[in-house]
Amino acid sequence: MTDVSSDTRLLRTQGVTAPAGFRATGIAAGIKSSGALDLALVFNEGPDHAAAGVFTRNKVKAAPVLWSQQVLTTGRLRAVVLNSGGANACTGPGGFQDTHATAEAVAAALSDWGTETGAIEVAVCSTGLIGDRLPMDKVRTGVREIVHELAGGLTGGEEAARAIMTTDTVPKQVALHHRGRWTVGGMAKGAGMLAPSLATMLCVITTDAVADSAALEQALRNAAARTFDRLDIDGSCSTNDTVLLLSSGASEITPSQQDLDDAVLRVCDDLCAQLQADAEGVTKRIVVTVTGAENEDEALTAARVVARDSLVKTALFGSDPNWGRVLAAVGMAPVSLDAERITVSFNGFPVCVDSTGAPGAREVDLSGEDIAVVVDLGVGSASASIRTTDLSHAYVEENSAYSS
Amino acid sequence: MTDVSSDTRLLRTQGVTAPAGFRATGIAAGIKSSGALDLALVFNEGPDHAAAGVFTRNKVKAAPVLWSQQVLTTGRLRAVVLNSGGANACTGPGGFQDTHATAEAVAAALSDWGTETGAIEVAVCSTGLIGDRLPMDKVRTGVREIVHELAGGLTGGEEAARAIMTTDTVPKQVALHHRGRWTVGGMAKGAGMLAPSLATMLCVITTDAVADSAALEQALRNAAARTFDRLDIDGSCSTNDTVLLLSSGASEITPSQQDLDDAVLRVCDDLCAQLQADAEGVTKRIVVTVTGAENEDEALTAARVVARDSLVKTALFGSDPNWGRVLAAVGMAPVSLDAERITVSFNGFPVCVDSTGAPGAREVDLSGEDIAVVVDLGVGSASASIRTTDLSHAYVEENSAYSS
Repeated sequence: MTDVSSDTRLLRTQGVTAPAGFRATGIAAGIKSSGALDLALVFNEGPDHAAAGVFTRNKVKAAPVLWSQQVLTTGRLRAVVLNSGGANACTGPGGFQDTHATAEAVAAALSDWGTETGAIEVAVCSTGLIGDRLPMDKVRTGVREIVHELAGGLTGGEEAARAIMTTDTVPKQVALHHRGRWTVGGMAKGAGMLAPSLATMLCVITTDAVADSAALEQALRNAAARTFDRLDIDGSCSTNDTVLLLSSGASEITPSQQDLDDAVLRVCDDLCAQLQADAEGVTKRIVVTVTGAENEDEALTAARVVARDSLVKTALFGSDPNWGRVLAAVGMAPVSLDAERITVSFNGFPVCVDSTGAPGAREVDLSGEDIAVVVDLGVGSASASIRTTDLSHAYVEENSAYSS
Repeated sequence: MTDVSSDTRLLRTQGVTAPAGFRATGIAAGIKSSGALDLALVFNEGPDHAAAGVFTRNKVKAAPVLWSQQVLTTGRLRAVVLNSGGANACTGPGGFQDTHATAEAVAAALSDWGTETGAIEVAVCSTGLIGDRLPMDKVRTGVREIVHELAGGLTGGEEAARAIMTTDTVPKQVALHHRGRWTVGGMAKGAGMLAPSLATMLCVITTDAVADSAALEQALRNAAARTFDRLDIDGSCSTNDTVLLLSSGASEITPSQQDLDDAVLRVCDDLCAQLQADAEGVTKRIVVTVTGAENEDEALTAARVVARDSLVKTALFGSDPNWGRVLAAVGMAPVSLDAERITVSFNGFPVCVDSTGAPGAREVDLSGEDIAVVVDLGVGSASASIRTTDLSHAYVEENSAYSS
């Protein structure tokens, strides 16, 4: 038997260009007034162009989300263009035309360089302040420049990962090489997806495995439900959250669905850990696990309620083992629980047993950066975890001065 | 026609002892190590002793809530004893025995002074840190002392209001004199009730109107649903929240149910405004109103989602008219809305029309202490409001250092 774990390594030095058949880079197109990188392109050279996506559940969807959902109905993509410096959300019909024009510009530039491409093969992602139109002259010029660079052979997954950053302090990317035969790579920014989000969460994952759009869709939905959907920084959900998965088939290997699911899950999980660690204002990385629930959905609901509770999050910011707030929070979760039989531990130390304080509970040391909160509801055997962060002064500072 | 408004004045210089037939005071019993007032008693001399209550919806209920819910099934109360300095929540069977013993001590002391009283006529309320047992020797001594003081004629509604304070900076009380004929008085601490709460919310309301427990129950449920239940500071909900309404009948006036409902509603509404203004870390008093909803429940749900959103609350702390966050928040509310037809105004200035930014939206001045956010969902004609506050550094500071 081969040791699978050592043969399927995660490398954070690589990203979306680790799989064969993908090129990517990022440039400064002038969308951000700071002059930082703000435009990224991920280009799939093929031979396959299968793709799948998951998007924000927010009813208020940004123009690029509406566009990308539409083009994904074909199950194929040649390219993804991403910009920071503006969310293009709540921008009306004009904003949707801007997204369409961006896709057209990418398609035209790629066609000029010999890859016949239609706008319908180009997904668009945007992140930044809601409500402002994009500077389309800069976007158009940037698109021509970035396609020119990629066509000329320049490629850099890390530059792409940098170009999608907003309040992120570091780029996030990772690659998984499956026994040296096929590869999954990914990049992400922000922290949030589906239910959660503190800023827009954008993520592009690539693979050189042979997989059709149905296989990609299954792998992506499975992974998103277990990773991005369980990362909850502040309970908010962006208008722009998008996760895309593209396959080039360039490895000529067709993995089993299980192997594909596992690889995509591991890449998404690692990107989530990176997003959590770089969340706005984070001083503590917190995992809230609920056990003893009637079923996994209820465990997840209860964990999310605790993970979102401002009083729990501020207590943990203060390294304060104030377990009573955990009980007060979980008591409001719309799930079955035995109010007399709840147990809570912090970092493995039982602080509350049968809904009453345990000896030494007030002295538990939570001064470290990682805090594990485990809550047992006492009614079943299902469990689930939510990753979150503390609620710190830095979070308030960053978010009270974002747009001004 | 009499001018009703001038004849039913709200006076914040009076509280639970404004109605005839009630005595109250607060003492320092040593439950708080600071030596501050920490024990209050409200005593109904009658002739009637009707009462009603509403309690936290948290599944994890403190011992005094379980006790008071039980005694309220009789529809009558002679006294309410309240302590700060300890919530007596998550304290197990021993904690419940402590509550029972406290009620017994009050009943015995009142009986000693000539008012034959059973423990079942005494409601108990507690507030403070969750998880610690109360120092019962101090509670017992304090109960004897406070009954002695009341029996000796000493009375002071404001002392009672002070004795229930925790992180409150000012006592909250108000009285409404209905055309000089009958009176409703109340006191409150904390901020929260039912869905909301940042600390325990305790409130005792008294009236000398003649009203049976069914009439009181209707008036209280009606008022709580429109006031305390629409005050949402941080989405948390205490294990101890309690609102009690007692009538002495001492005025010998039996008001119509409508007049009673109106008076109790006005007292509760004024106490809510006081709680909001003194909420932990508040720098802005915010009212989120949702209009254009399909029904009032959906309006309320949407307003609550916006009022709880950390990104909205931090933006308003920063006086930042970042209306995009309001759209992102309301888009996650589980209600009907037209995602293309949402309008938002800040302090009456339209910042978003048909889900896109309005001219001048980024320059709206939100530097004042009061901010009105109005969101129209564009699908109906129902509306509802939630009172909340901003998310400030002071909130984080206060709540990261509460128990330690």
